[in-house]
Amino acid sequence: MNRVTSLLGIKHPIIQGGMVWCSGWRLASAVSEAGGLGLLGAGSMYPDVLREHIRKCQAATNCPFGVNIPLMYPQIEEIMNIVAEEGVKIVFTSAGNPKTWTGWLKERGITVVHVVSSSRFAVKCEEAGVDAVVAEGFEAGGHNGREETTTLCLIPAVRSVTSLPLIAAGGIGTGEGILAAMALGAEGVQIGSCFALTEESSASAAFKEHCLALGEGGTKLLLKKLAPTRLAKNAFRDAVEKAEESGATAEELRDLLGKGRAKKGIFEGNLDEGELEIGQVSALLSRQESVKDVMRELIESYRRVAERDYLSMM
Amino acid sequence: MNRVTSLLGIKHPIIQGGMVWCSGWRLASAVSEAGGLGLLGAGSMYPDVLREHIRKCQAATNCPFGVNIPLMYPQIEEIMNIVAEEGVKIVFTSAGNPKTWTGWLKERGITVVHVVSSSRFAVKCEEAGVDAVVAEGFEAGGHNGREETTTLCLIPAVRSVTSLPLIAAGGIGTGEGILAAMALGAEGVQIGSCFALTEESSASAAFKEHCLALGEGGTKLLLKKLAPTRLAKNAFRDAVEKAEESGATAEELRDLLGKGRAKKGIFEGNLDEGELEIGQVSALLSRQESVKDVMRELIESYRRVAERDYLSMM
Repeated sequence: MNRVTSLLGIKHPIIQGGMVWCSGWRLASAVSEAGGLGLLGAGSMYPDVLREHIRKCQAATNCPFGVNIPLMYPQIEEIMNIVAEEGVKIVFTSAGNPKTWTGWLKERGITVVHVVSSSRFAVKCEEAGVDAVVAEGFEAGGHNGREETTTLCLIPAVRSVTSLPLIAAGGIGTGEGILAAMALGAEGVQIGSCFALTEESSASAAFKEHCLALGEGGTKLLLKKLAPTRLAKNAFRDAVEKAEESGATAEELRDLLGKGRAKKGIFEGNLDEGELEIGQVSALLSRQESVKDVMRELIESYRRVAERDYLSMM
Repeated sequence: MNRVTSLLGIKHPIIQGGMVWCSGWRLASAVSEAGGLGLLGAGSMYPDVLREHIRKCQAATNCPFGVNIPLMYPQIEEIMNIVAEEGVKIVFTSAGNPKTWTGWLKERGITVVHVVSSSRFAVKCEEAGVDAVVAEGFEAGGHNGREETTTLCLIPAVRSVTSLPLIAAGGIGTGEGILAAMALGAEGVQIGSCFALTEESSASAAFKEHCLALGEGGTKLLLKKLAPTRLAKNAFRDAVEKAEESGATAEELRDLLGKGRAKKGIFEGNLDEGELEIGQVSALLSRQESVKDVMRELIESYRRVAERDYLSMM
């Protein structure tokens, strides 16, 4: 028990990141049923699809779950209204200013957590009245901060500027990683890649196999002139890298990226043309498992390493 | 006590990285006197200068100390002979193949530790017969690995492929960071930036002040087409960044870099034209201190966070 489990009403301080094309009701409800917090990823859902997933998630579990909403979502007002109408109790917001929606959500009794990649934004979160903050480091898959601060350096920096409950994200996929985050001052973790590659994730089988086979250096932060994005190796990424190395402008990169690349890669399993968003920790993962097994292993390995006598090592 | 302290004959498993233009006999002997392992940085010393620093270090402390030798050093044979002649007991090698010198050094009774940035190279170290390995992540200052694996992801990866004593480096500058590294499977840490900015470091006052004022995003990994190098913000780095963004070739970057930039920046304190090598963890540091105070704070803060009850958090 700590401030994160109390705030969210969960058993273990493990939150499944709300990821595009991976985090539907099957994944979110499985994580919540296993004692963590499942999040639906609204970023890749049309409004009516999100409503359907919320209802299915409510039917599948009585445990708390939430919705991740990227604030640059085009029909953001419609999405927020759906979340409120459907009685969602927890919203994680990201990719935008926490001041815009926090008050509106809190007035409706919704717990608000915002994702940041710098201590500067963590301060803005506290000013905006959010209930907790996720600090996400350079290791994370998909969209990422411009400052490239890694989780190891980011968590203490955020810890030093805010007293809010702090959830660490980026590069965490083992019990050892969770303990490291706790040592740095976090009170919970948000885990993406590890859950994106489970049986319950709605990502395509081809995407999961590809990512589980990655080793060190298999992902890279690219598209820095647009929005920095961590991508797994494939033909599309090779093209991006080549363009960037020869000085492609933001506009040229936008043309190269086009529309719907993440859906193509993650959901449809087009490994050549798609954008394959996954975190650096994928190098440590090699087997597809069920959410239940992943949760059990995370908790068991955490407890095993937390029992070691660290005092005697210094 | 653990395998790292036993191997190196030190009290606390804290090693001061052997950094160019920072790590002379004053810094190394102060760290060794405080119970850690000080390293002379041979990379920025002419052979006769290194000999002088070894002798001064021997005069200043009876505790163990070592020498860091980048294996691409031009007069490498001369350097190795000096180390053996002067009775140095510990050598850290980096930037090269561990097979080349390990046997020669071990035949002379010298303990050999090699620095890697991937688990693939950690395996090569074990095959080469080194005594321990330093795994250094993306956060580290100066020269860095091509795969950009962060310390959080690198330590478990290296831990899983080798049974050698494992020292974590990159992004560590607080007791919390040391505990995080231990949780990930390390048995000791190598700390660079934090010691580079102490009173005893031979870096210029201007360099130290500049680095202590850096915040998040203040350093960046650049020069990726040559040898990836983490640099602090300044006019020279701005020029490198601009060149890279417009697609500069490796040759153009080599011309831009020229010779002696690190000496100019770090040692001579030319903040505009010099190359300012420092790690990402500099964002967490703001006060210049003595080595003794740094060591005391690292050990005290480690003990404080190691005493927390992490088991109850899960």
